[in-house]
Amino acid sequence: MRKLKNSELQRISVEDFKSAKKTPIVVVLDNVRSAMNVGSVFRTADAFLIEKIYLCGITATPPNKEILKTALGANDAVAWEYIKETKDIIRKLKNENHHIVGVEQTENATLLQNFEKPNKKVVLVFGHEVFGVNEEVIELCDECVEIPQFGTKHSLNISVSAGILMWEMWRKLQ
Amino acid sequence: MRKLKNSELQRISVEDFKSAKKTPIVVVLDNVRSAMNVGSVFRTADAFLIEKIYLCGITATPPNKEILKTALGANDAVAWEYIKETKDIIRKLKNENHHIVGVEQTENATLLQNFEKPNKKVVLVFGHEVFGVNEEVIELCDECVEIPQFGTKHSLNISVSAGILMWEMWRKLQ
Repeated sequence: MRKLKNSELQRISVEDFKSAKKTPIVVVLDNVRSAMNVGSVFRTADAFLIEKIYLCGITATPPNKEILKTALGANDAVAWEYIKETKDIIRKLKNENHHIVGVEQTENATLLQNFEKPNKKVVLVFGHEVFGVNEEVIELCDECVEIPQFGTKHSLNISVSAGILMWEMWRKLQ
Repeated sequence: MRKLKNSELQRISVEDFKSAKKTPIVVVLDNVRSAMNVGSVFRTADAFLIEKIYLCGITATPPNKEILKTALGANDAVAWEYIKETKDIIRKLKNENHHIVGVEQTENATLLQNFEKPNKKVVLVFGHEVFGVNEEVIELCDECVEIPQFGTKHSLNISVSAGILMWEMWRKLQ
């Protein structure tokens, strides 16, 4: 099996990305501490043609050296906006009839394998590396979804969680 | 929805992990450059109770400060072994009747959404951040699997790819 060269992968230009039909998924980063995690989320969002990323609170925004290190420029393609208060954008997206999913380990959270795709645009909310999604933001979510975990550690890295969620949502939309 | 405390997550001890029934998946890291990526793969492998990780060639091994930073100690739980030549362990695992999957963009690669779980133990092979899985290793694989990507960048971060693959394999085993 011959490996494909980069030129054979037929990736699109930033210009074509902007005008391409997007995967109807929005990502909200609620006070994510690490700019490298933010960059990694951009890179994955680029791969899955995600509609937009909202960077909230203390979440770093481009231009930023550490974002660039892991995004490799994907932040030039994926639409993004900085919002000071996460709750403000969540309320706005709720009013636009989106289904707000907090990715968090809560009481009555839906295990990811049991998640049923709603007939609405899905908003995925990821939180701080240590403290998770803010309680007040959780209260505004329509549903919380949890990646099942069976080992010794309490959680996954946020860029890995975001990768799994974006993949799973994209897969369910096919 | 109340967030769960760490104490409510009922995670297992390192001792219990060692004796727990594992998910029948083996991970091979073929010359992965970044120790932080290695640590992140350990953390995800811990979550999904992965059987073993083979660290090959230039791939960093514990104890290592950067592995610790992203593994958060998951390397104490998940079984691992250092192998100098990736091909040696791939040949051994093939002889043990495992199905070797190179995660790589190749001619005739299976798109992840079309991957059919074989009736054998699956070995997931991930390669170098820039050069991917070595050509000689690819030749020994039973199948190559590719995560579909539609954006401007050529690939995903390896710890994100590994997260998506481990999740998808775990999901298919349920």
